[in-house]
Amino acid sequence: MTVVRAIRAALPGEAIVYLGDTARVPYGTKSPDTVRTYARQNTAFLLDKGVKAVVAACNTVSAVALPEVESEAGVPVLGVVEWGALNALARHPHRVGVIGTATTIGSGAYERAIARIDASVEVLTQACPLFVPLIEEGWWSHAVTDAVIAEYLTPMRESGIDVLLLGCTHYPLIRSALERFFGDTVDIVDSAESMARALGAALERGEFAPSGLDASGALERSHYYVTDRCNHFQKLVTAFMCETKPAIESIPIEQLLQVRSAS
Amino acid sequence: MTVVRAIRAALPGEAIVYLGDTARVPYGTKSPDTVRTYARQNTAFLLDKGVKAVVAACNTVSAVALPEVESEAGVPVLGVVEWGALNALARHPHRVGVIGTATTIGSGAYERAIARIDASVEVLTQACPLFVPLIEEGWWSHAVTDAVIAEYLTPMRESGIDVLLLGCTHYPLIRSALERFFGDTVDIVDSAESMARALGAALERGEFAPSGLDASGALERSHYYVTDRCNHFQKLVTAFMCETKPAIESIPIEQLLQVRSAS
Repeated sequence: MTVVRAIRAALPGEAIVYLGDTARVPYGTKSPDTVRTYARQNTAFLLDKGVKAVVAACNTVSAVALPEVESEAGVPVLGVVEWGALNALARHPHRVGVIGTATTIGSGAYERAIARIDASVEVLTQACPLFVPLIEEGWWSHAVTDAVIAEYLTPMRESGIDVLLLGCTHYPLIRSALERFFGDTVDIVDSAESMARALGAALERGEFAPSGLDASGALERSHYYVTDRCNHFQKLVTAFMCETKPAIESIPIEQLLQVRSAS
Repeated sequence: MTVVRAIRAALPGEAIVYLGDTARVPYGTKSPDTVRTYARQNTAFLLDKGVKAVVAACNTVSAVALPEVESEAGVPVLGVVEWGALNALARHPHRVGVIGTATTIGSGAYERAIARIDASVEVLTQACPLFVPLIEEGWWSHAVTDAVIAEYLTPMRESGIDVLLLGCTHYPLIRSALERFFGDTVDIVDSAESMARALGAALERGEFAPSGLDASGALERSHYYVTDRCNHFQKLVTAFMCETKPAIESIPIEQLLQVRSAS
């Protein structure tokens, strides 16, 4: 939802079709092969809804599945890794810290993306597997979260970094705790914000052709699909998107597989 | 693996076919409907391997899916909830604390199981969603884990319980930390051990007919299947089961769905 909020801010006039694969999350602890399979299935579902561009609103998917997904999609597919790297390097850092899930960090995608822009920048990475569960538990401002941050990131703080890149779309929710830990000398960069601004600029430049989506009228409202019924999801959408009666639909996981076989 | 270890100890002469749905875990945060769908698919896969009994080595599955799974299976299906409740009440407690995942605790299965045996026993429950991620991270003996235990379970300790029932098969791995927190006056009961002892007794009484499994010879060794490649899994099997070269096979998640459609 942090990504959807950023896209809505950048593109207030576009309808959003959201798919949350709540029946199979988290992705960040799963193997690259499994993440790629899920990402291809999810993309096929969204394409079936007539979208003009797909955003992988997840760093793990962006890190390990983007080339495969884009080659199949036939529409632009945007991830968060490249934009996060670009935005981090716009601060002209000497040393960048990148944090993310085990699979994102294990993929080396951020090191490669940063090196393609400026190979002289030093990159320190740290997988933080407990951040997502802590955030899902709602412990955004909590002594336990502070202790876990200290456990994972004291070596990175001691090494000295200029920029901390939040390589997971959950992490903006503990941005304040991370700011407290790192202090004023470290700039915190959110990969989702970077991506949403880039998406807005590309749409303004007319890089993505208008699709039949808007003409049909059927998708004028944003639509939210989830693969598992989730009691908190409506509250989340309301909180993040200021939509009091969001259109949320649960779809059976089998529907993703059917879409995939049909494509 | 805590359940497999308990079964191996109770039944050293039986081949075990293990399925770890690593591509879709954790189950404890998912809705009962989704857990039931997964449990039925997983059971169909195991039945296809010719097993003579199925153990739901997961409290969440045991709590929300057992009747449906057993009615389809045609072989005995054992969960951990009933046995945990029986074993807890064998200590003649006045007040039992039950801890588990959000879905297990939300189901009320333990309260019902205990009330069926002795409705006079008071039951206190607490969902502990961060325990599984902490255990998966390997922080079994860690100040953060102690802090999370205190956060979740101080009210239960203050209310006073005689028995603490570990309603999640991960939790035996932090048993020592829980013992330190609750002290000597609280008996800790592991539902998996209870179930494995019951399974051993039932097999000795000949309640489960021998199947073609042993005659074929193909499954004389225990076989481990996982739906997602998992680097740690071989280490886990070696550590828990003392098998130096376990037979581990990754199966694509689609295979579970095929088995289900065929059944």
